[in-house]
Amino acid sequence: MRLYIGLVHYPVYNKNNQTIASAITTIDLHDIARVARTYDVKRFFVITPLEDQQMLAERVKNHWIIGYGAKYNRLRKEAIELVTLVSYLGGAIDAIADMEGEPPLLIATDASSQKNRNISYEKARNLIQDGRVVILILGTAWGLDKVIINRADYVLDPIFGRAGYNHLSVRTAAAIILDRLVGR
Amino acid sequence: MRLYIGLVHYPVYNKNNQTIASAITTIDLHDIARVARTYDVKRFFVITPLEDQQMLAERVKNHWIIGYGAKYNRLRKEAIELVTLVSYLGGAIDAIADMEGEPPLLIATDASSQKNRNISYEKARNLIQDGRVVILILGTAWGLDKVIINRADYVLDPIFGRAGYNHLSVRTAAAIILDRLVGR
Repeated sequence: MRLYIGLVHYPVYNKNNQTIASAITTIDLHDIARVARTYDVKRFFVITPLEDQQMLAERVKNHWIIGYGAKYNRLRKEAIELVTLVSYLGGAIDAIADMEGEPPLLIATDASSQKNRNISYEKARNLIQDGRVVILILGTAWGLDKVIINRADYVLDPIFGRAGYNHLSVRTAAAIILDRLVGR
Repeated sequence: MRLYIGLVHYPVYNKNNQTIASAITTIDLHDIARVARTYDVKRFFVITPLEDQQMLAERVKNHWIIGYGAKYNRLRKEAIELVTLVSYLGGAIDAIADMEGEPPLLIATDASSQKNRNISYEKARNLIQDGRVVILILGTAWGLDKVIINRADYVLDPIFGRAGYNHLSVRTAAAIILDRLVGR
């Protein structure tokens, strides 16, 4: 399996549909890193061009990998080690191409349907099982900017539960998506 | 569907396997309430005997239901309205029995297998689809105390991903479990 995740903090939308760079939420790093570790994702790219936010993410990483946290909780260390900081989505794509010898397919996620561009969970699952290099792109705040959606090869179907309400946190959405795509 | 969730803060284990009452994590309330709303869960019981923690949870509820948050984000309101505070698991069971006219089946969750007591996702899914009244019980901190596990009618199979690592946050575990049990 050659699956990667990217969590995008820029460009994303705010509540008023403006393009922004969102702040890093440390709980996103922990929760999604543990999901990534559970489902054997190769790397979890945290994408932000803001230097102070990169420093925050590095501090979290260092605490759990080489600081007190590493002794306190080895299991957090195993997960957070997957986190790799990059400034832009392009940096994640370059890093993956370097490692895998080919660029990844980009599968974006969105809470709304993108007609003609959507891919089902089953088809995306098959691509991954077939050994394709894939990066699954998740947005923070009010979701991925259209620039990213348009750049993606596919947009994964939204998560519909049972109630017509699809406003999950990015943490819980990431968990459900990974379980659907690569869970046994 | 007559499905309920309970998030237990006492009795649970700490890192050293001692029975404790854990503090409320407000992000648990938000994330799990949104998961509950997505999957049409009838109520989300937040279980803690600690009065200061109950007050904290009430403040969060009120902010989003009648305070500024209700105007700021209606979707959070719809989710957080499902939160019902009780002091003990028994209080949740009593409330459900009152509403449904019968006590619920207790399905506990645990990161470890409980031999002879485990129920598969498929069987649990069938119980719920058959219209049985069910409360799914999630533990905070290092998991549900044995007293709760022993009291449960069933213990749901652990979530195994692909890597032999099952140390998810309770938020992401709740999301995966609900998607498996009642997702379409």
